[in-house]
Amino acid sequence: MKITEIGEFEFIKRIAQKFKVLPENLIGIGDDCAVIECDKDNCMLVTTDMLIEDVHFIKNKISAFDLGKKAVAVNISDIAAMGGKPHSAFISLGIPPETNVEWLDTFYNGMANILENYNLFLLGGDTTKSHEKLVINIGIIGYVEKRFLKLRSGARIGDAICVTGYLGDSGAGLKLLIQDKESYDPDETYLIERHNCPNPHVTEGVWLAQYAEVNSMMDISDGIDSDIKRIMEMSSCGAEIYLDKLPLSQSFVKICEKYGWDKYELAATGGEDYCLLVTINSENYDIIANEFQKKFSNPLTKIGKVLDSKSSFSYYLNNKKINLKSIGYDHFLIK
Amino acid sequence: MKITEIGEFEFIKRIAQKFKVLPENLIGIGDDCAVIECDKDNCMLVTTDMLIEDVHFIKNKISAFDLGKKAVAVNISDIAAMGGKPHSAFISLGIPPETNVEWLDTFYNGMANILENYNLFLLGGDTTKSHEKLVINIGIIGYVEKRFLKLRSGARIGDAICVTGYLGDSGAGLKLLIQDKESYDPDETYLIERHNCPNPHVTEGVWLAQYAEVNSMMDISDGIDSDIKRIMEMSSCGAEIYLDKLPLSQSFVKICEKYGWDKYELAATGGEDYCLLVTINSENYDIIANEFQKKFSNPLTKIGKVLDSKSSFSYYLNNKKINLKSIGYDHFLIK
Repeated sequence: MKITEIGEFEFIKRIAQKFKVLPENLIGIGDDCAVIECDKDNCMLVTTDMLIEDVHFIKNKISAFDLGKKAVAVNISDIAAMGGKPHSAFISLGIPPETNVEWLDTFYNGMANILENYNLFLLGGDTTKSHEKLVINIGIIGYVEKRFLKLRSGARIGDAICVTGYLGDSGAGLKLLIQDKESYDPDETYLIERHNCPNPHVTEGVWLAQYAEVNSMMDISDGIDSDIKRIMEMSSCGAEIYLDKLPLSQSFVKICEKYGWDKYELAATGGEDYCLLVTINSENYDIIANEFQKKFSNPLTKIGKVLDSKSSFSYYLNNKKINLKSIGYDHFLIK
Repeated sequence: MKITEIGEFEFIKRIAQKFKVLPENLIGIGDDCAVIECDKDNCMLVTTDMLIEDVHFIKNKISAFDLGKKAVAVNISDIAAMGGKPHSAFISLGIPPETNVEWLDTFYNGMANILENYNLFLLGGDTTKSHEKLVINIGIIGYVEKRFLKLRSGARIGDAICVTGYLGDSGAGLKLLIQDKESYDPDETYLIERHNCPNPHVTEGVWLAQYAEVNSMMDISDGIDSDIKRIMEMSSCGAEIYLDKLPLSQSFVKICEKYGWDKYELAATGGEDYCLLVTINSENYDIIANEFQKKFSNPLTKIGKVLDSKSSFSYYLNNKKINLKSIGYDHFLIK
């Protein structure tokens, strides 16, 4: 049997059961980060991601500087997803022998830039030879007070499902990049930048985590269509999403119209949004969203509702149940 | 300029200076692990290594089970190198789509086996698609009491340079593997097993770390020829090594004779020994070596002496200064 026949999520389930059960003070596979109890009040968060050339990025579609920043940003986003503050980074690179040192310099400058911006230390890593493809593995350590730690498993029936930013910009940016056009208009350029330069929502995550009424949290990497199912699985609940409520940027809507792309489908499945997906006790949503708006430039938008475990998952468009065509991204299943 | 023109160690120096200077409670690049102070008495150790198919391993030269074990073992060895106990593991895999699930199952069984043996938890990782080559990135977290933490930078003039195991077995095993013979005699089989199934010296490291007279410690991954220079660099000292004192296994000596290999050169440069390289106050060496012998199956062998910073590095064979032909392994410089 080939790995392509079972896909990433099935495969992870299969291997997870080989390893011993964790004690209560540890959280492993299934959340954005692993959680290790430091002392009675504090937890350490650890996340790691592998990025491979021509699977996760195409070298001539992103500058070396932006690639360095993005590789770190997507990991910082996992720390943000649990309400934590990032502390330090570990960078491993598999480098094809023909790689230019000047390119690598710029790439590391991008990494140094984002580490500086988020006040992280580079503590280690590994550099080694690769074959044709550049391989990047980033590990990030962060910390969170135990009382502020948010998991995927905390969603409660009736919770408002919310997002901390606009959806689909990054997915549209990627579609534009692979069109290989000679030039891009300002809206297109904006969307491409949103794909290449994500801003992890660390401040937003830390702020939301202070509220006991925020019941679950994760970051949006595969797209809400796929990511909401992780919360459903970990919280044993159902969910409904109102597509007409998805927060969409003006540029995104314009470009979807220009190319005839289904904006709802792309916003739900495009992925790499790297804002946060949170479920909030519905009674408190208005107050929290109000405060959020005063503090941050992006809106906190209610896009759906958590249902009981007997309900499955549904999309609504203007109060009518509908189906989306695409399914969430799986590196092994989608070619 | 290509990365092949500057090599791994020069490249690491070049990038390290881009990142901000660490505060006193953190140790970063330059030791086997990063060190993060947990509280006034304890430190956390973090290490990460990337292994790439056909650079670090050849899939038809090692069983899936042994490869899983070895990938973890070489990282546990870094924790041992600083006197620590490993606690948890993070496993990231880049998997070519054609990979067999059964092969991966066995590979993960090997990982689960060594984690079980050393009492580690699997806390996370990442699985993603790779192109043609399997990519493995392992991260290990460990802990050590601050008073027992050993660094590369602690060597003192006059220290006895010692190793906790036999040298060269693994290097000889590798040479045999790439000969592509149809069958191997028992000595050859033993050496190949020493290459494919290293045993990280965790118990030895923890035991040695209790002694204040053990001034510096690291694990031997590139071979003592290369690794002693890391201690010299970090401790600002010189060193001399007595080749006739290197601890060599009977199988190793026999096979070197059989194929006409220079046993001293291979023992010093073969690499992947994964025992420990320690420097011990020379007055205490005898007592510690004696106790070590009572406790462990491998000898603690004095193979050289730490010199002042004006002295450089020399090999002696039967009291005569000599040169070795090979140089330490660098993935980028050695083709």
